[in-house]
Amino acid sequence: MSQRVSDEVVAKAMEEIRSGPSSRRHGDTLPHIHKVGAPPKQTLFQEFKHSFIETFFSDNPFEKFKDQTRSRKFVLGLQSVFPIFDWGRSYDLKKFRGDLISGLTIASLCVPQDIGYAKLANLDPQYALYSSFVCPLVYAFMGSSRDIAIGPVAVVSLLLGSMLTNEISDYKSHEYLRLAFTATFFAGITQMALGVFRLGFLIDFLSHAAIVGFMGGAAITIALQQLKGLLGIQNFTKKTDIVSVMRSVWGSVHHGWNWETIVIGLAFLAFLLITKYIAKRNKKLFWVAAISPMISVIVSTFFVYITRADKKGVSIVKHVRKGVNPSSASEIFFSGKYLGPGVRIGVVSGMIALTEAVAIGRTFAAMKDYSLDGNKEMVAMGTMNIIGSLTSCYVTTGSFSRSAVNYMAGCKTAVSNIVMSCVILLTLLLITPLFKYTPNAVLASIIIAAVIGLVNIEAAILLWKIDKFDFVACMGAFFGVIFKSVEIGLLIAVAISFAKILLQVTRPRTAVLGKLPGTTVYRNIQQYPSATQISGMLIIRVDSAIYFSNSNYIKERILRWLTDEDCKRTSELPRIQYLTVEMSPVTDIDTSGIHALEELYKSLQKREVQLILANPGPVVMEKLHASKLTDLIGEDKIFLTVADAVSTVGPKGGGLV
Amino acid sequence: MSQRVSDEVVAKAMEEIRSGPSSRRHGDTLPHIHKVGAPPKQTLFQEFKHSFIETFFSDNPFEKFKDQTRSRKFVLGLQSVFPIFDWGRSYDLKKFRGDLISGLTIASLCVPQDIGYAKLANLDPQYALYSSFVCPLVYAFMGSSRDIAIGPVAVVSLLLGSMLTNEISDYKSHEYLRLAFTATFFAGITQMALGVFRLGFLIDFLSHAAIVGFMGGAAITIALQQLKGLLGIQNFTKKTDIVSVMRSVWGSVHHGWNWETIVIGLAFLAFLLITKYIAKRNKKLFWVAAISPMISVIVSTFFVYITRADKKGVSIVKHVRKGVNPSSASEIFFSGKYLGPGVRIGVVSGMIALTEAVAIGRTFAAMKDYSLDGNKEMVAMGTMNIIGSLTSCYVTTGSFSRSAVNYMAGCKTAVSNIVMSCVILLTLLLITPLFKYTPNAVLASIIIAAVIGLVNIEAAILLWKIDKFDFVACMGAFFGVIFKSVEIGLLIAVAISFAKILLQVTRPRTAVLGKLPGTTVYRNIQQYPSATQISGMLIIRVDSAIYFSNSNYIKERILRWLTDEDCKRTSELPRIQYLTVEMSPVTDIDTSGIHALEELYKSLQKREVQLILANPGPVVMEKLHASKLTDLIGEDKIFLTVADAVSTVGPKGGGLV
Repeated sequence: MSQRVSDEVVAKAMEEIRSGPSSRRHGDTLPHIHKVGAPPKQTLFQEFKHSFIETFFSDNPFEKFKDQTRSRKFVLGLQSVFPIFDWGRSYDLKKFRGDLISGLTIASLCVPQDIGYAKLANLDPQYALYSSFVCPLVYAFMGSSRDIAIGPVAVVSLLLGSMLTNEISDYKSHEYLRLAFTATFFAGITQMALGVFRLGFLIDFLSHAAIVGFMGGAAITIALQQLKGLLGIQNFTKKTDIVSVMRSVWGSVHHGWNWETIVIGLAFLAFLLITKYIAKRNKKLFWVAAISPMISVIVSTFFVYITRADKKGVSIVKHVRKGVNPSSASEIFFSGKYLGPGVRIGVVSGMIALTEAVAIGRTFAAMKDYSLDGNKEMVAMGTMNIIGSLTSCYVTTGSFSRSAVNYMAGCKTAVSNIVMSCVILLTLLLITPLFKYTPNAVLASIIIAAVIGLVNIEAAILLWKIDKFDFVACMGAFFGVIFKSVEIGLLIAVAISFAKILLQVTRPRTAVLGKLPGTTVYRNIQQYPSATQISGMLIIRVDSAIYFSNSNYIKERILRWLTDEDCKRTSELPRIQYLTVEMSPVTDIDTSGIHALEELYKSLQKREVQLILANPGPVVMEKLHASKLTDLIGEDKIFLTVADAVSTVGPKGGGLV
Repeated sequence: MSQRVSDEVVAKAMEEIRSGPSSRRHGDTLPHIHKVGAPPKQTLFQEFKHSFIETFFSDNPFEKFKDQTRSRKFVLGLQSVFPIFDWGRSYDLKKFRGDLISGLTIASLCVPQDIGYAKLANLDPQYALYSSFVCPLVYAFMGSSRDIAIGPVAVVSLLLGSMLTNEISDYKSHEYLRLAFTATFFAGITQMALGVFRLGFLIDFLSHAAIVGFMGGAAITIALQQLKGLLGIQNFTKKTDIVSVMRSVWGSVHHGWNWETIVIGLAFLAFLLITKYIAKRNKKLFWVAAISPMISVIVSTFFVYITRADKKGVSIVKHVRKGVNPSSASEIFFSGKYLGPGVRIGVVSGMIALTEAVAIGRTFAAMKDYSLDGNKEMVAMGTMNIIGSLTSCYVTTGSFSRSAVNYMAGCKTAVSNIVMSCVILLTLLLITPLFKYTPNAVLASIIIAAVIGLVNIEAAILLWKIDKFDFVACMGAFFGVIFKSVEIGLLIAVAISFAKILLQVTRPRTAVLGKLPGTTVYRNIQQYPSATQISGMLIIRVDSAIYFSNSNYIKERILRWLTDEDCKRTSELPRIQYLTVEMSPVTDIDTSGIHALEELYKSLQKREVQLILANPGPVVMEKLHASKLTDLIGEDKIFLTVADAVSTVGPKGGGLV
């Protein structure tokens, strides 16, 4: 004990000898010496309010309501729930021209896609048309994106169909339809709840990489499902994984394929892909790709009608119910054994639908530089799906392909959705019987042509280049979807995304810093090989907030750096007497972190090394004070910058190792 | 379009005019201009290897095997699995004296505690004694902690008992015992697997705060359970929540309490608490508290034996089986319906046992400054419980109270555990029949006295002072345990801990920086009110790695800072032309982060604000290059420090706002 005390006395004396002149010298060159400041003390309530606002109201939605009269507040409130009352007032004929053209274009794309997508959800075609009538109307009043095209989409239809079939395998039954409406209702409730409780950030947990993989896998799964229609196979597997599907396809090669169907299907698939290619090469010809599905439907329907190819085994749509949406309010399961599955399917499909919509909304908002309120979008989507579920619609969201066409056709506002909705209404009222002879093969080729764009190989290559972990997440989701099922792929994507977050907070980086020659800047010696270390001092930067999940690792890693450096520096050089922890990136610390720092301090004491902290942030400073750790370490061992610490306690010359 | 191009030209020209002279001036003062360095390029394999090692082998366990002969490697390997071969070689008589005294002391504490703890797990007393015989022996050979005292502990016994009773409510049945062994076996497998696969960091996810709350709640629950023994209540609830227990206690107040039992119980409880208090006041008298349970047992047993108080309704232990552990290898469920529950209970209790052991091990290792290999400890614990499960033991771990006594009694090595184990062996062989007349009330008071120390009010107060969120986690676990059940409390603790991590990565802090007068140091203007902002430039520091979970928030938060500052700075001052993002704390970025930066750049372009990056770290630099974002932003817009950026592009005078 006495041995240690005397050592401490010696060390202290040495330090005083050192710091005396050097702090004077320091004072000569710098007119102001700044101590590490603690921020103005906040009360508990202020602190809580601040965190709460930053977490849930980071976009400051109530800013504009401040200092307004009551009637003005009402108008603003109305406008914020129904943005149409805001942008509608400056709406003019010029804008309408753009919206009319784009609305007609997306409608022509929507009708054939709808009929196909309904099949993915194992529903009759009219339900997709119903969905394309009611939902875009609701969205036009409440949504804030100007470019998004609302309607049923391929991936959500597949997901819904696959999850519904898991519950009720007989998809012709009335229960299946009721469960679809139930799921849609709860999808809407989920979306609305996320928006109202401002939990929209939850969808950020599905990483971009995971979405790329999931979408690609879903697109391939969807395309594979279309082989049934394209090849005219009768007995097709109900599973969606690639192995079952290919077995189904090969198994029926000799007796199950229908050559007339194949000819029709492949011919129109070629036509659609060529128009798509043309549109891709020349952006101005985007309308060629946009109207080609409609042309395909008209031509093929006419062709089948006059040749009566349906008698030769070409399967046709047969029946699309005429008339507008019937009410389905009484169909939703609010109790009974299907309530649970309905809620579960609704939550999952609602979240996925939201992810897609928000991704699309953000992309186009960034392109036109207007801001999109994520939480408001969610409320709009939620309301749209709730109303949809009461009027025989199933889950709708923003469609990638139709939104892009909408954008390129020059839409100005959500009025293009209203135009589309009107066209769908007319379709429902007048021309649905005409779809009777539309061959399923053409619908299959339309779907294949539509989803092929979701396989984003460039994005996957970029992921590989930038972040290998992201690439793994992407591939995990991709192979999960195509080899198992949509849900498994989704689960893998979410799990990998979470694992990444956890890994990040458990194993933060630490770096040894050195002085860049001729400056007072201290940087990572790995990144800047010219940076030189200070004799007798080791400077380590901790690159993360110190929390319970990493506090122990950080402590042990710092001690390991010390041991390693002690070995590396040869015996001739002075041993390390000071360990400076650069705390700039340490934005927060919790009780476990404080304990770890305390333990670090004690371990260093045993090794006769002095702990120095450089630039702790406001929160850290506050907690160091609250825990009295500043008293233990010593206020004079906490510096504003590493350079300050070096010039105060370090060797005179700032000598190199 | 042409409008924007011309704007860009003007902006560029302006910038050139500015940067020309200032960079010359900059060159005058600083001899070296350092560019932001990219680290030496690593191959994919190197990169992967580095992350892998840092994640799983951060303690570099193979270091010492390097450059050794084969036979030496074998010896080192043996020593690393069985540390006793390492420290055993320098073991001497002086150390043995310390170990003998401390071993005898903890044995005298262990016997009465064991008999009580077995009741918490609803097992016969001998099983706890078996556990205290075999497990410490195994640990002594394999463990690396010198101070830990191994054996059954209160919290794990309670957890095990509560989870086992959930599966098999008849705890007198043979199945119950078999399930206990099964759970113990899988607890060992879990612990061993965590160690072998180096996943020990997983237990770090249970935060210190959560443990404090959980332990406190468990201690109170255990103490409440003892009211049965202390008051001599016959019909006691099987539930552990405070409401059920208190109802049980009050319900039996008139006919169920036994005054003789109460007198014995309270008298000895008072004795135990007084000795505890004495030991706390004077650390040298720790042995008073250590032997008082044994004295209580001897005195009360003798007293009951001569007065035959058991005839008057004082419940006694009755039967403790004599002899050493029978084999239980054939009792473990390796198939059948109890395999699943056995695995589940094993995993949970194994993790909790490990958490307790590692916390104890680290505490004492820090006090004596030796290092503890967490993963090796887990392997030791796992082996100990696997062997235990084959020899009629149930889950054991390090005990808080006995380890403290062990430490204070002057233990030197794990030999104290061997001494204790030998004493327990003698107890099993010779004196177990003597426990027949031990009153349960005394055991209850021994348990209450032992667990009362787990309620750590000071720690809870410190949590409140340092981190409110930690306090909430602590209270959540605490109330979860006492009002619902041990498992629910545990679940709450884990959930809150995870929520904290997720919140941290979703809503990282951002700060506006200003220049400290008279320096070139830029700091948070909230923390340093004297810091002044630069005219025409906004400097923002992002305090976190940019990942998918926060990339969108960070982008929007930066744009909001810009909008806010633009409003705040009055119209007379120059508008903000440059936005500098200080990237020092941004240790990593993923593809979503890259996208966000790209979108930020585009949004700023629309607002005619130039994006500048200061001090991106090695990983960020690499990814900026890989994604070609450096070309978009411009290599010349990336600076080593904020000061460099300001002096190169900023206004000449470094003027203030």
